[in-house]
Amino acid sequence: MTVWRKALAELLGTAGLLCAVVGSGIMAERLAGGNVAMALLANTLATVFALYVLIEVFAPLSGAHFNPAVSAVMALRRELPLSDLAIYIGAQLLGAMLGAWLANAMFDLNIFQWSSKLRAGQGQWLAEVVATAGLVLVILRSPAGKAPALVACYIGAAYWFTASTSFANPAAVFGRMFSDSFAGISPSSALGFTAAELLGAGLGAAVHRFIR
Amino acid sequence: MTVWRKALAELLGTAGLLCAVVGSGIMAERLAGGNVAMALLANTLATVFALYVLIEVFAPLSGAHFNPAVSAVMALRRELPLSDLAIYIGAQLLGAMLGAWLANAMFDLNIFQWSSKLRAGQGQWLAEVVATAGLVLVILRSPAGKAPALVACYIGAAYWFTASTSFANPAAVFGRMFSDSFAGISPSSALGFTAAELLGAGLGAAVHRFIR
Amino acid sequence: MTVWRKALAELLGTAGLLCAVVGSGIMAERLAGGNVAMALLANTLATVFALYVLIEVFAPLSGAHFNPAVSAVMALRRELPLSDLAIYIGAQLLGAMLGAWLANAMFDLNIFQWSSKLRAGQGQWLAEVVATAGLVLVILRSPAGKAPALVACYIGAAYWFTASTSFANPAAVFGRMFSDSFAGISPSSALGFTAAELLGAGLGAAVHRFIR
Amino acid sequence: MTVWRKALAELLGTAGLLCAVVGSGIMAERLAGGNVAMALLANTLATVFALYVLIEVFAPLSGAHFNPAVSAVMALRRELPLSDLAIYIGAQLLGAMLGAWLANAMFDLNIFQWSSKLRAGQGQWLAEVVATAGLVLVILRSPAGKAPALVACYIGAAYWFTASTSFANPAAVFGRMFSDSFAGISPSSALGFTAAELLGAGLGAAVHRFIR
Repeated sequence: MTVWRKALAELLGTAGLLCAVVGSGIMAERLAGGNVAMALLANTLATVFALYVLIEVFAPLSGAHFNPAVSAVMALRRELPLSDLAIYIGAQLLGAMLGAWLANAMFDLNIFQWSSKLRAGQGQWLAEVVATAGLVLVILRSPAGKAPALVACYIGAAYWFTASTSFANPAAVFGRMFSDSFAGISPSSALGFTAAELLGAGLGAAVHRFIR
Repeated sequence: MTVWRKALAELLGTAGLLCAVVGSGIMAERLAGGNVAMALLANTLATVFALYVLIEVFAPLSGAHFNPAVSAVMALRRELPLSDLAIYIGAQLLGAMLGAWLANAMFDLNIFQWSSKLRAGQGQWLAEVVATAGLVLVILRSPAGKAPALVACYIGAAYWFTASTSFANPAAVFGRMFSDSFAGISPSSALGFTAAELLGAGLGAAVHRFIR
Repeated sequence: MTVWRKALAELLGTAGLLCAVVGSGIMAERLAGGNVAMALLANTLATVFALYVLIEVFAPLSGAHFNPAVSAVMALRRELPLSDLAIYIGAQLLGAMLGAWLANAMFDLNIFQWSSKLRAGQGQWLAEVVATAGLVLVILRSPAGKAPALVACYIGAAYWFTASTSFANPAAVFGRMFSDSFAGISPSSALGFTAAELLGAGLGAAVHRFIR
Repeated sequence: MTVWRKALAELLGTAGLLCAVVGSGIMAERLAGGNVAMALLANTLATVFALYVLIEVFAPLSGAHFNPAVSAVMALRRELPLSDLAIYIGAQLLGAMLGAWLANAMFDLNIFQWSSKLRAGQGQWLAEVVATAGLVLVILRSPAGKAPALVACYIGAAYWFTASTSFANPAAVFGRMFSDSFAGISPSSALGFTAAELLGAGLGAAVHRFIR
């Protein structure tokens, strides 16, 4: 399979993921009428279901990273050729944006919009470090064939046990900038989240190496 | 197995699916007291559980389509004889209607009723295209033995991330016309939804062929 | 394994099931503060989780029926010796009562109490017929090794899509008589529910035979 | 693998578990605005997801006990060398404390705090006996490879069907002392809970031996 076919899989999968995260966030916010716990619960279930399905469906094509931090770890471990890394990341970011736009279109919102939701502070950044370290550890330690369920369940838990609701994915940060909703993140907060996630990914890979 | 035995399986399975969707919709609406997010959450879980069980139970008999759009895709792929397609669709539509009527009877409602719930507009139709394209893609790309869980989880996510709550199935549209409840759809809205679903099914099959 | 060892497994399993159903019903009612949809949702999840675990854990010992209607169907199919049927049913009823009492004790309620919750009427009885027919069909058609998950998911769906919240089990009816709570059923309503369940079990077995 | 490597796995796993339990408790309490059923529901889902993932990920390293009562039972059964028992328990307690502190830090709370939540009384203690006996029974009777899912589902049910919301784990008791939140337990209540859990573990092991 050429890298372009793999990139298409990453683009479609990341678009599907962001469409699910943003779309279910919009739906949950509309229906929950201010009950934020209910909104996050619905957002969680939709994300868990979608992530499980997307990883099962696209893993045979591209590995189903949908996440630049994961692709970077795979490149460091030489499981992804370094020459493919930029292509993967480009496909993920493009897919994330398109997925958010598709959600906006389905819900009759302005397709092009920016989130105004500020997400910053020590607790939030620590949460993203923890969330991404845990995600990388789960991926690297998943028994054969179990990664789709384990990653989906991990994110489902992390939506609640991290103070940031666990983005844990620079492509998710990028895509959520395009939705001024419950699930969004202001562009001004994106850099902090992304830095924390990359730090967390490195930490997760280091812990994995240490305990192996 | 003769086609009539398969048709019986499709009829029973689609009846079970619509009974679950409509029945849990009625129950959820009654108990939730105006909390629409809660109602959709309960409706989602009941649908996911029922769909998973029904596909596992009826797949060995008929393939467990329960969905004219899926049967049409299978016929196009020559996995369903063209001569059986009309019989499958007839069984699915009949089953869908009987399932909705059974739900009405259990909840002491008038068995024969029409939904008055209008569902239309660009966002809704786009949502049905997306929902059905995704469903077909998931079915065609499911690893061996995983289709029941993947289809159920996909629909569980799509109930929330699509603006239409993801009917994704012309037989579901048909059956839900017979329930004037939370889960219903007005007959006047049925054609638009069905057209969008068939378009989506074609799109899903095309994307599948392209990325293979 | 002697029948008495099997009976002990049925007793423990049915006690665990009723303790989970009644206990989570009490907890949900206490915490939900009148939000009945929330209470049933929590009750549903606890039941699905418990049922899945109990069937996995006790199936190798006794078959994990926990249900006189299921045992009767197994006896009819000669998968349970007729001479063991009465012992199974006795163990299930005794276990159901003990499980409800244990729940009462944990929640600091009077251990000995009767439910005052009337459950009757055409819709309710039809619902129990449907619920039990479906349960028997799911059990008889489960692919090897999948019955625990399928039965648990089926009951999770049926809690919502049947008007009776799906008892589908004469031992559950018996045990729930001993809890004057959300999950209870008045002794005066027990006969109607039990008759409907036995009818449903027969119907499910007949449908299974017909579609095989 | 040396015992110290195993101890590290127990420390990390128990830290992850307590971080998930306490963190999701804080998040749920904040978002649910007094709706305790909603808070426990979210806390339940996060715990079930996290527990499943943690057991899958760490079981190959240390057995994934994360629980002194479970380690004690394993030592009694000579599946854990008696000389390792104290090391396991020390790692679990240390991990539990660190996990709770990490949750506090993520949510911008004082890292060092004590719970003021009293949990005591006959019903609560009986509940902990029942919860831990059931947990041990589930672990000892799990079919090969199914323990991660069964333990997670069991705890998910027990959060609701036991009056104590099922700590069932002296390390969980220890860690939750360090969180003055929804999920916390006052140090003054810790001894009673721990004693009940050890009693329950013994009871579970005895029942297992009896029904084998």
